[in-house]
Amino acid sequence: MSSSDNTSEIGKKLVALCNSGKGLEAVDTLYDEKIVSIEAQGSDELPARMEGIRAIRGKNTWWYDNHEVHASKATGPFCGHRDDQFAVHFEMDVTEKASGQRHQMAEVGLYTVRAGKVVQEEFLYLQG
Amino acid sequence: MSSSDNTSEIGKKLVALCNSGKGLEAVDTLYDEKIVSIEAQGSDELPARMEGIRAIRGKNTWWYDNHEVHASKATGPFCGHRDDQFAVHFEMDVTEKASGQRHQMAEVGLYTVRAGKVVQEEFLYLQG
Repeated sequence: MSSSDNTSEIGKKLVALCNSGKGLEAVDTLYDEKIVSIEAQGSDELPARMEGIRAIRGKNTWWYDNHEVHASKATGPFCGHRDDQFAVHFEMDVTEKASGQRHQMAEVGLYTVRAGKVVQEEFLYLQG
Repeated sequence: MSSSDNTSEIGKKLVALCNSGKGLEAVDTLYDEKIVSIEAQGSDELPARMEGIRAIRGKNTWWYDNHEVHASKATGPFCGHRDDQFAVHFEMDVTEKASGQRHQMAEVGLYTVRAGKVVQEEFLYLQG
């Protein structure tokens, strides 16, 4: 199996888990211990750049605890010329529990794979 | 205007032109002379990596000449932590004229911007 096949397979597993509401299982099974996660913007609760499986697991738990997910769809993986990269398109309909505000979001996740594990995720947000 | 604002503005123009059926105008007005274009796979007609505005214009003209576009939608730009990058999600319903085969495609375009011009485009294809 070439490394690009491997990357595509990891992408397929991640998309399937996200579409089954098992985002945390994707973190637990597909992510490297030294995962780097980079958002477009940071906040007081969540810095833009976080490192390490414990921090990223905590970030995901925080997110699920603080949002009610009405609908969520992941499409992908999208694979290009790089053997170590795939992209996923996400669409979500969520209510932020603290504010009660409901909004529809779209983003692209860019994932980097090394030695069979996701070592970096970057999120690009749809501009209004 | 910061460079990330600039990148986002170029992305918005590219998406608007693609959604108006003016993909060639996007190449003519937004692309650098030394643009690098990278597909996931190459073919006899189109190598995976092509360079220079004439080659990329030719590639786009070839594509439009050889496909009948029934529907096409670009969504974006998606912007992340990098000041010089945006992504676009494309959905297309096209018939390849030579074979008569109609298919629905989805891809993600990753664009790199330098000094106000797109200097690289990479296409990632949805894996079946």
